Amino acid sequence: MDQSIEGHRYRYRRPASCMTVSAHLFGILAIMLLLVWLLHYREGLDLESYNANRVFNVHPFLMFFGFIFMIGEAMMAYKTVGAERKVQKSIHMFIHFVAIVLGIVGLHAAFKFHEIKGLTNLYSLHSWIGIGTFSLFCLQWLFGLGTFMLSGASNETRARAAPWHVNGGRALLYMAICTALTGLMEKATYMGLRHQSEARLINFLAIAILLFGISVDLSVSLGRYV
Amino acid sequence: MDQSIEGHRYRYRRPASCMTVSAHLFGILAIMLLLVWLLHYREGLDLESYNANRVFNVHPFLMFFGFIFMIGEAMMAYKTVGAERKVQKSIHMFIHFVAIVLGIVGLHAAFKFHEIKGLTNLYSLHSWIGIGTFSLFCLQWLFGLGTFMLSGASNETRARAAPWHVNGGRALLYMAICTALTGLMEKATYMGLRHQSEARLINFLAIAILLFGISVDLSVSLGRYV
Repeated sequence: MDQSIEGHRYRYRRPASCMTVSAHLFGILAIMLLLVWLLHYREGLDLESYNANRVFNVHPFLMFFGFIFMIGEAMMAYKTVGAERKVQKSIHMFIHFVAIVLGIVGLHAAFKFHEIKGLTNLYSLHSWIGIGTFSLFCLQWLFGLGTFMLSGASNETRARAAPWHVNGGRALLYMAICTALTGLMEKATYMGLRHQSEARLINFLAIAILLFGISVDLSVSLGRYV
Repeated sequence: MDQSIEGHRYRYRRPASCMTVSAHLFGILAIMLLLVWLLHYREGLDLESYNANRVFNVHPFLMFFGFIFMIGEAMMAYKTVGAERKVQKSIHMFIHFVAIVLGIVGLHAAFKFHEIKGLTNLYSLHSWIGIGTFSLFCLQWLFGLGTFMLSGASNETRARAAPWHVNGGRALLYMAICTALTGLMEKATYMGLRHQSEARLINFLAIAILLFGISVDLSVSLGRYV
């Protein structure tokens, strides 16, 4: 490799790590704002409660902390985990698996809330994009497992599949971010929130979630210049 | 360049163009669904009307057709315009400029609607993300103009700025998509739409907008392997 490319690569290593750090910070900020919202303004979280609102609250919490935050961290595992490639790959796969499990519990909370309240499932835009994203995500995970973890696929197949896996994964992260934002928008509009402090808290929470997504994306995409 | 890399590059040219074609198709589909919604279900579009709803309808139309669709097409200009690089660059810049102008008219329609109806501006999540995205987009345009069009910047500066310009632009596209989706979600929830055919039309419109964004993104990001 000639020296100018080496120098060029070195220059981009820092901004990409800077994005990884922002991703952690915005992710933790979003979790904190989410907890303030659910514990202080709403009635807390309990999947087994008779109070439908406490059951519902498990949904936004697990869909962000359990699903979106986890998939973001899993995407950055190749940068944040100081271990050999094989270990990084297993951690990448394992955190995504945890995200699927917690995501299923989070989805269950929304369906359970609808059942208690006698509401219909899956009519809103939020639910359509959400179900679509979650299903495609599970397919992407299975596709990744088959292509990159199990020994069947040749190196050539892996090289051909990699850009789709990486860029498709980034698109899925943005789909999940869109789902979270439409969910918060739906809830705030449904509750008629406008100028209350709760409305502003939800807006800041949504912005933190969006900035988490953008930072993860830039950490991965700028990292490809490293 | 060795032959295996040449072969490798060749292989990815097709999928990237395939994404460019899907982007055009989903973009046109979204414009058609948007027009069906605004002309058939709503009261049509007219910025100078005394009917507040007709003024409002200019907003979603111009923010998608005038802004999001244009920026997507501008991002893909390096692939779709069969001309030398300099011409492609000018077209890329010019379509983005058109998007800014039409975006300003689209934003004006929303403010005018609020004024007629006596509603407060800029309280919702949709408006916060929208204003943020539009402002950052204008900065990105000025930054691009200064760095890549005007002759002041050295080739080294351009090479350093390029990954930020490309990846930042992709993140801005997704921010715009998130804004569109929260806007449609807000409108549908506010109007209390659930099981009507209009509700379903809005959901399909939002999905077409999302798939347009994803196709443009993949066309650009997979295209970097070409």
